[in-house]
Amino acid sequence: MIIAVIGGSSCSTEEAQMAEAVGRELAKRGATLICGGLGGVMEAACRGAASEGGVTVGILPGDRGKTANPYVQIPIVTGMSYARNVIIVKSAQAVIAIGGSYGTLSEIAHALQNGIPVIGLNTWALSRNGQEDNSINLAQSPAEAVEKAFALAKKMETSQT
Amino acid sequence: MIIAVIGGSSCSTEEAQMAEAVGRELAKRGATLICGGLGGVMEAACRGAASEGGVTVGILPGDRGKTANPYVQIPIVTGMSYARNVIIVKSAQAVIAIGGSYGTLSEIAHALQNGIPVIGLNTWALSRNGQEDNSINLAQSPAEAVEKAFALAKKMETSQT
Amino acid sequence: MIIAVIGGSSCSTEEAQMAEAVGRELAKRGATLICGGLGGVMEAACRGAASEGGVTVGILPGDRGKTANPYVQIPIVTGMSYARNVIIVKSAQAVIAIGGSYGTLSEIAHALQNGIPVIGLNTWALSRNGQEDNSINLAQSPAEAVEKAFALAKKMETSQT
Amino acid sequence: MIIAVIGGSSCSTEEAQMAEAVGRELAKRGATLICGGLGGVMEAACRGAASEGGVTVGILPGDRGKTANPYVQIPIVTGMSYARNVIIVKSAQAVIAIGGSYGTLSEIAHALQNGIPVIGLNTWALSRNGQEDNSINLAQSPAEAVEKAFALAKKMETSQT
Repeated sequence: MIIAVIGGSSCSTEEAQMAEAVGRELAKRGATLICGGLGGVMEAACRGAASEGGVTVGILPGDRGKTANPYVQIPIVTGMSYARNVIIVKSAQAVIAIGGSYGTLSEIAHALQNGIPVIGLNTWALSRNGQEDNSINLAQSPAEAVEKAFALAKKMETSQT
Repeated sequence: MIIAVIGGSSCSTEEAQMAEAVGRELAKRGATLICGGLGGVMEAACRGAASEGGVTVGILPGDRGKTANPYVQIPIVTGMSYARNVIIVKSAQAVIAIGGSYGTLSEIAHALQNGIPVIGLNTWALSRNGQEDNSINLAQSPAEAVEKAFALAKKMETSQT
Repeated sequence: MIIAVIGGSSCSTEEAQMAEAVGRELAKRGATLICGGLGGVMEAACRGAASEGGVTVGILPGDRGKTANPYVQIPIVTGMSYARNVIIVKSAQAVIAIGGSYGTLSEIAHALQNGIPVIGLNTWALSRNGQEDNSINLAQSPAEAVEKAFALAKKMETSQT
Repeated sequence: MIIAVIGGSSCSTEEAQMAEAVGRELAKRGATLICGGLGGVMEAACRGAASEGGVTVGILPGDRGKTANPYVQIPIVTGMSYARNVIIVKSAQAVIAIGGSYGTLSEIAHALQNGIPVIGLNTWALSRNGQEDNSINLAQSPAEAVEKAFALAKKMETSQT
């Protein structure tokens, strides 16, 4: 199981704590963590995962592996700037969004476009032409977010078989 | 001036009429129209632009130029699926969104991430962690959308000089 | 008909003269010129095409349209660095390579991988595991290169119908 | 250390044996193996690495992780077709090419363009405008290829510090 954690490269202390808890929980359950490989939410999530012996993958926008945060074990160097956002979500069976700005919004959109479940913690809400869009599954805590991510990923896997 | 028109590859009659009017108006003002090159809003916008002698560019997701709608004069073949969404908005000085689904939302997000103005006609609305985000400039008509696109594109150009 | 001209962003005077002649000839025959949009061979080819009223498209690696050479009429901004090389060749019905370094070699390879004919002027030669590979069609002059590009592009078009 | 192994998605028995031996040797030395994730040389290299407990990453061209060969532990889903070739080589500190067709040639070219060392086993040879290009480091055996890959990767790392 590969789960993506997305969010800003700078973030509040609260968001970092949530991301770290999400990372820890993912690792405890044996999931590989994929993210954009940079700071903020991405770094906190990787730190959490690494503290529990989890595998961490960073899909980097730039040209150098050294731009990855220190908790990324497998840095993937795309050199494609934010076109790499698509790769992060496509490689995951579910996506957990924590806070985030427009980059995170683009990742949420790409995930929904590809039918990949998105779980949100204090993140974007959407409405389309005046109608609320409830495609983002809201969670109230890191534990609930991870729980939902696993449940939705498994549900999707089953439906594809 | 290059202006992007984004929206669904299938769309309502009303959206198609808006897109066609936007395309005509862009061509009258001498702008090059860039879009995703497929059907729906993209095709209607290209048809409008072509009817006024405008230049139309389609950034295609697939592997063949022949997948472009018949009003695309310059088909660009990326073979990159929806990673091509980034290219559409980055190549434009302003983006006009008409309706649209998650692909359109990803383009709106990529544009905002890159500081490119977005004008919306019956499209997505955003809020972030409970706070409304007003980055999409609302328009009530195709004429107003094009007017705003030119004004915002020029303003940005001036600020960059 | 869209024809790509590929080659180094810096080049010899002889290569620039060849590229300019190729650009002129393509424009005279009504082809749209696509290239990487930067200097050297790309700029010379665009200058030649523009001098005959041809349409020029530049697929740029960076984040800004202003990095295009002054003869590019339609700058496409990918922000994808050299991953954009694939787009240049996929968008063309034939590719003319003039001199060039490893970037040009990657474009030749991507073209051949996609079954797009490549015509070479003073450019790379290939052998695979000790056997010469003659997939690059050699030309002795700009006029011959353009002649071959049109002939091979038409042949391929016919075979696909 | 991340080392890429590149080559055809179908290959001869001899090439598969070389690729498997390269994969085993990389894993024994603790390197992570990155490749295009499909069959042929890629699968043989992953099988070799996995047999020695190594980590294997596959950068897939398509839209589904399930297209990866069974020895890929971390499938990265790009959906970008052969634009993904750039990512494979950019993520590596050295590249070992075994046989291969035009896709492999594009990877060799992208690696050389990015200053990443390439080691060749029965693969492409290059000459540019009549002059041999010796940028591909030839190896006579899988062991020599891996030896050279490590030596060149370390040399480059040192020169960048």
